[in-house]
Formats: sequence, C-alpha cells, structure tokens
Amino acid sequence: MLFRQLFDQESYTYTYLIADTKVGEAILVDPVITLVQRDLKLLGELELTLKYCLETHVHADHVTGTKRLWVKTGCIGVVPAHAHIRCANQHIDNGEILKIGAISVKAIATPGHTDSHMAYLVNDNTDAPARVLTGDALFIRGCGRTDFQSGDAGTLYDSVTQCLFTLPDHTRVYPAHDYRGYTVSTIGEEKRWNPRFSGRNRDSYIDFMNNLNQPNPKKMMEAVPVNERCGRVAVAV
Amino acid sequence: MLFRQLFDQESYTYTYLIADTKVGEAILVDPVITLVQRDLKLLGELELTLKYCLETHVHADHVTGTKRLWVKTGCIGVVPAHAHIRCANQHIDNGEILKIGAISVKAIATPGHTDSHMAYLVNDNTDAPARVLTGDALFIRGCGRTDFQSGDAGTLYDSVTQCLFTLPDHTRVYPAHDYRGYTVSTIGEEKRWNPRFSGRNRDSYIDFMNNLNQPNPKKMMEAVPVNERCGRVAVAV
Repeated sequence: MLFRQLFDQESYTYTYLIADTKVGEAILVDPVITLVQRDLKLLGELELTLKYCLETHVHADHVTGTKRLWVKTGCIGVVPAHAHIRCANQHIDNGEILKIGAISVKAIATPGHTDSHMAYLVNDNTDAPARVLTGDALFIRGCGRTDFQSGDAGTLYDSVTQCLFTLPDHTRVYPAHDYRGYTVSTIGEEKRWNPRFSGRNRDSYIDFMNNLNQPNPKKMMEAVPVNERCGRVAVAV
Repeated sequence: MLFRQLFDQESYTYTYLIADTKVGEAILVDPVITLVQRDLKLLGELELTLKYCLETHVHADHVTGTKRLWVKTGCIGVVPAHAHIRCANQHIDNGEILKIGAISVKAIATPGHTDSHMAYLVNDNTDAPARVLTGDALFIRGCGRTDFQSGDAGTLYDSVTQCLFTLPDHTRVYPAHDYRGYTVSTIGEEKRWNPRFSGRNRDSYIDFMNNLNQPNPKKMMEAVPVNERCGRVAVAV
C-alpha cells in the first residue's frame, strides 16, 4: 500500500492519498480545491489512476477538490449517505467498503461533528496495523467542533468512545486536521491522553464542548454551500 | 520502531522523533526551540527517555531546541563534526552510527547547503524499507539553498546525486522542511521527479541555484549565532 499524508497549510487540512501500486489505483480522502493541481501532479508522477474521491463529511473550513478532480479524471465522488448530497456519484453508509486492489476502506459512522460524518478504516491485507482516518471526529489530543452545522456534543462523545475507542490500541490515527504539528497517533494513545475524552464523562464533555465559544470558521459561509454541491464553485467548472 | 514526523508551522520545519519503545529510548532530530514543550509532553506521554538530540546542520531559519531539551532531560546533543560547534555534547562524522535499542542512525555526509551537513539513514533491524532524513540537502521535489552560510551548489549536486541517489529506490525520504504539504517521498521518486536534479547536469544545476535570488531567511541573523551556541539564547537558560 502506498499511503501519503498531504497537508494544506491554509486550512490545516490533511488529505490522504491511498493506493495499491500493483493495480495502479488510488483514493483521495478529503481533497482540497486549492491543491488539486498538486494532487493531480503527484498522481501522475506515481502513475496512479484516481478511482475515488472520498469525503469524511461536508466541510466548513475549506472547499472540497472532488468536483474539480472528477472533471479532470472521471473519478467517482463518494459522500456519506446521510449527508444527502444529491450531486455525489456514490454514497457510502456505515459498514460499507470501498476496494482498490488489496486495500479495503470501511466506513464507520461517527456522527457528532456533523450528523452524517464517517471515519474510514484502511486495511491492506497484511499484518501491518490498520489505519483509521478519523476526519473531524477525533484529532490528535483533540476533536472537531460540535457547535455548528448539524453538530451535537453528546453524539460525538458516543461516536469516539463507543466506536473509535473500541478499535485495537495499535490502530494508527490519521485526522483530517492538525493545528500543532502532529501527524499521527494511535487509538491507545488517544484513549489515554486525549484531554477531551480521557477522564471526562459524557456530561462533562457536553458541558465543555458547549462552552468553547469559538468564532465560526472564516470560510464557512462560502465552503458549506459549495461543498453541498460537491465542490462545484460555479455553473461552469 | 516508533517514528513520528512533527511539523513547525512557522518555519515549515520537520522534527523527527525516533524511538525504540522496547528499551524506552528516543532521538529527536532537528528540534525547534518554540516547540520544546510540545515535544517534551509527547515524550512523557509515550514514556520515552530522550537519549539524543541530533542536528542535520546549523539552521538559519529557526533556533534549535537542543540546549533547552538538554537542560530539561540531560540528553546528549549531537552535531555534525565539521560544523565545529564546541558546545555540542558529542560530534558525529560521516559513517558513524548512533544506536538506540535495535535502531541505528547512520550519518551520511551531504555538504552543499552547509559545508558540514549530515543526512541520517534510519534502520530498525527489520525488513521494512529504510528511512533517510535528508535535512536541507534534499527536499520533496526540491532542495535546500546554497547561497548563504557555507553553501556551495556544485557540492550539493554531488552530495545528492552521488550519495543520496545511490540509496535503494524504495528508501523513504523525510526532509527537514516542506513548503507545499508533502510529508514523505522515496529516493526512486526524487531521482525521477525532483526538478532540481532530474535531467539537469552539474553545470546547469549550479547556474540555476546561483540565480535563485531569494531573500535571506527572516530569522537568519538571530538563528545562526544562537545555533552555533547549541540553541543557548542567553547566558542563563
């Protein structure tokens, strides 16, 4: 398996390139519209065909690159089923699996940051520890916000503690954002050291999350409606 | 082997944490002074003892965290021998190896960005592809500057093409900086796609590098003298 973590220094977003080089097929998870050229160049250099663009959720802080990548490559844009994004080429529901070569990418419903958020468990049919792309449900020593769009703190607490934290401890955690320079963690580490969840019960977490009082993301008013159109920024792309 | 890539969003620097968790010992490569607290916290959470702080070179764009980490942990500060940094606890020369548990970190003299620059080849005694920390000699699809300190373009061309590019193609490349959101590459990829070296002969490379006309790094006048004192920012630390 080829696995590449790519960073957007403007929105602190991680995009993930996952590929089976034997069959030459790739998935991009959470591509960013302003970095589509970088990602296309890398795909070309690695001689990979982009089969899927996959979203963890409808983003509020950046515009997805999916539509632009679909126009350029004919890839299949995949969006969580309950986001009700009609323009998506394909929807994915809890437990469903996308395959490229020997790699499986399994959707794990993890609502709370938004009501339709998915994490993705990536396995490559080897003994290597699995990777989980946690989107905005679980960050390294943090988590996504629950105070806008369809967020709900109690729901996110349940998603993280009852779904993600039941994965094996050595599962590698790759979030959709990082603001402090971390790139990877493990489920075991987050269970022990994530200050949002460790030693905090559901009520305490809800109280904490409901009192963060953060400003809305700068691009929210622009990004959400565009992302609901799969990243189509105008009638003509 | 535990291998963590850590990013400084101010200077676009990658610090690397390498540890043998069986013996509980760690190396930090190119720590950044402003992120010492982050790195100490992570070491504590992972229950690791910091054995070495290791520099690829005397940096011009950020102040090293080595002195501060030495004060806090008693680690051994290791600097390339030909940098003539007298305050270092230990010097490392071409071909010399630092060991922590089953992990070996071998110095590869790669002058050109500075005249004493080292890359480090990291092996963990398994069949996994080696990692090379390329410092400012080789970036992903780029390379370090050669127009200040003791830089020399022809020397860097020779270091990259005759030393780094003779490593096996599948060797994973981890640079000291990235400005476009890349995290990792391979020697094979860089031989084929790095625009500074691919299809360019030594004279053409020297001409290109000598005409970049970039401004000096913002922190150069502050960082270089402090780094020559191993990161000691004042008489009292």
